[in-house]
Amino acid sequence: MADISTTLPLTRSSVIAAHELVRPHVHLTPVVTNRTLTALASTPRTPEQLQGTAWAGRAPASPVIRLWFKCENLQRVGAFKARGAFHAVERLLREPGFLEGGGRDKGVVAHSSGNHAQALALAARESGLPATIVMPSVSAPAKAAATRGYGARIVPSGSTSVEREAVTAQVMADTGARLVPPYDHPDIMLGAGTAGLELQRQVAQMQAAEARGERVHGVPFTGAAGADEQGKGSKGLDAIITPCGGGGLLSGTALSCEGTGIRVFGAEPSHQGADDGKRGYYSGVRVESVSSLTVADGLRTPVGAHPWSVIYERRLVAGMYSVTEEDITAAMRLVLERLKLYVEPSGCVPLAVALFNEDFRAMVEREAGPGGWDLGVIFSGGNVGVDTLGKLFAPAVAA
Amino acid sequence: MADISTTLPLTRSSVIAAHELVRPHVHLTPVVTNRTLTALASTPRTPEQLQGTAWAGRAPASPVIRLWFKCENLQRVGAFKARGAFHAVERLLREPGFLEGGGRDKGVVAHSSGNHAQALALAARESGLPATIVMPSVSAPAKAAATRGYGARIVPSGSTSVEREAVTAQVMADTGARLVPPYDHPDIMLGAGTAGLELQRQVAQMQAAEARGERVHGVPFTGAAGADEQGKGSKGLDAIITPCGGGGLLSGTALSCEGTGIRVFGAEPSHQGADDGKRGYYSGVRVESVSSLTVADGLRTPVGAHPWSVIYERRLVAGMYSVTEEDITAAMRLVLERLKLYVEPSGCVPLAVALFNEDFRAMVEREAGPGGWDLGVIFSGGNVGVDTLGKLFAPAVAA
Repeated sequence: MADISTTLPLTRSSVIAAHELVRPHVHLTPVVTNRTLTALASTPRTPEQLQGTAWAGRAPASPVIRLWFKCENLQRVGAFKARGAFHAVERLLREPGFLEGGGRDKGVVAHSSGNHAQALALAARESGLPATIVMPSVSAPAKAAATRGYGARIVPSGSTSVEREAVTAQVMADTGARLVPPYDHPDIMLGAGTAGLELQRQVAQMQAAEARGERVHGVPFTGAAGADEQGKGSKGLDAIITPCGGGGLLSGTALSCEGTGIRVFGAEPSHQGADDGKRGYYSGVRVESVSSLTVADGLRTPVGAHPWSVIYERRLVAGMYSVTEEDITAAMRLVLERLKLYVEPSGCVPLAVALFNEDFRAMVEREAGPGGWDLGVIFSGGNVGVDTLGKLFAPAVAA
Repeated sequence: MADISTTLPLTRSSVIAAHELVRPHVHLTPVVTNRTLTALASTPRTPEQLQGTAWAGRAPASPVIRLWFKCENLQRVGAFKARGAFHAVERLLREPGFLEGGGRDKGVVAHSSGNHAQALALAARESGLPATIVMPSVSAPAKAAATRGYGARIVPSGSTSVEREAVTAQVMADTGARLVPPYDHPDIMLGAGTAGLELQRQVAQMQAAEARGERVHGVPFTGAAGADEQGKGSKGLDAIITPCGGGGLLSGTALSCEGTGIRVFGAEPSHQGADDGKRGYYSGVRVESVSSLTVADGLRTPVGAHPWSVIYERRLVAGMYSVTEEDITAAMRLVLERLKLYVEPSGCVPLAVALFNEDFRAMVEREAGPGGWDLGVIFSGGNVGVDTLGKLFAPAVAA
């Protein structure tokens, strides 16, 4: 990881600079719309649907919400994590003294068994750096194989954080490799925020095309620099909602929106305390550990210190909302059946908030009024096995 | 349906004319590529993998296949069927005397419980025609509700074809509505063929962009008229493979390729005789009835007479191939996990052929040589419930 003293300031301009660095390496993922889901989001729930929820007996909210989906499930390695990893590696290569100090031989190291491992392996390989991934030896063999497939060396460790960190420290001592953490670093946050930047620009372009009477779906929107300034006939997004695990994507997106008037919200699972970001946000104290087995397995992590500084201390996030496991599964069903897209449970959490969280929906009704909001929703990734789907949607078996 | 005497001739020019008519109504669906699947298609299977298949003991074929996927699962109503339905309605509106004869009040009728019902309902509504759909009363209530949601009137019938046709005839007698069949009509075939036309043009544009050193993924390719002629630096596709049920998509795609040098192949399930197209093609006699419960439920239909004239009599299809239920499920798993796209089992059949049918693979090796083929694969639709996925991919339950 580039030394913290050499990182760019946490501003929208830095997200724009990050976008220029990662653009040659990552996919410009599509933004899609869907009439059925937009109609569903803009239809009040029935009192019956609220039975058994935290909002039973309350009058259902009646917001107008036009949905725009950013498909990071179609990103390289199947998740937005490619953006942060490529940005981290590109910044490292530009750090004064890194290459001169033998950086090209020393390479990078991370401890991860998830999307970050594959993203860093890919980014390192494309930049000609060796990568070592410390992975608990209990991880699924498919994950180690996939990461090795991107050219990384896998070093097994025990499964506690103490064991992983000890092995990682040993790798660093042995090889001189730089640690690239999965979210708690400015370079990772700025890289992740490029998803939010593209989303803003693409929606502005799509709205401008609509205003010209063009069909929007499937038409090219480049997300090119300056597009947001050029969007004649478009007002752009009113708000964006992203998943919040470690907070890299949420904080980066918030930075990408700073000064634009676009409000940014975070979405979490409520199961077994995985709503640490929300609890911290409303209590003013960051929650530093989480132990949840929510189906949204990418969001089992507590928010990191750097993301927290953006999300909470600088108040660049306007609110945090959580949903139940049932809400997440219901949203995932709609994404599969209606959008025909394969999005992992973590990536479906923001849509679940927009459709099923009455606090969020009442807030939109209140803030937006009858004109409603254009709401950007980031589908953060698509890395889930069909076996998990088989479990989630298995037909009930007679006992 | 427009009177057969007023339909355009079955030629590539007519597909181009059909595209101009349907373009304002349908989505220009994306074409995507995937390195993992292209590498898999270009890797010989192992002798172990061929154990238990029809090719056990044969030396595995070693073709080079570059895959290009046309995402009609992202089409309106979730399937390519929208193309044929819009084309049929647009042609009907242009039939001399139709409107003068009160066509706008008489409208259209179809008997279908599948994608065609919803496609016709949508196309009729957007053109201001009333639509009646005759649907077996045993159909899933969700299907009737979805079709009604597009503004159609649903008339229930018995489930045999005799019963359905009697009810349909009664509707025609009562209302004067025109019958729009799901595949066995030139207007439907020409409309379906616009998917193949767009695919050719988009691939030529993408290859030209690659030749200019641009990143292709996510970049706009409009499939505009003339694009195939303009593709400097691109050789275009060598072949296209589509699913074959009633044969509308296959025959339309074959027409869209006539004279281009692009070979067109059909793909079917082999389960319980659903490979009727293949059996007819190689025996010279069209198979007129099929009774199969293949998981590829869109392909349980026999090939219609009009499609047959293109597929077999005019030899515009270069070969027919079939795959097992296991092959289809394995291909669907790859589409979900690797491409992150939700494609119904019928839509995964052509990819299954490209990956798992050794006759097809040996033919490509032989015909293409070491340079390989650029192969277009049409994902025909995405209309499958997650409950079906739950069954296909359910964890094994201990007996």
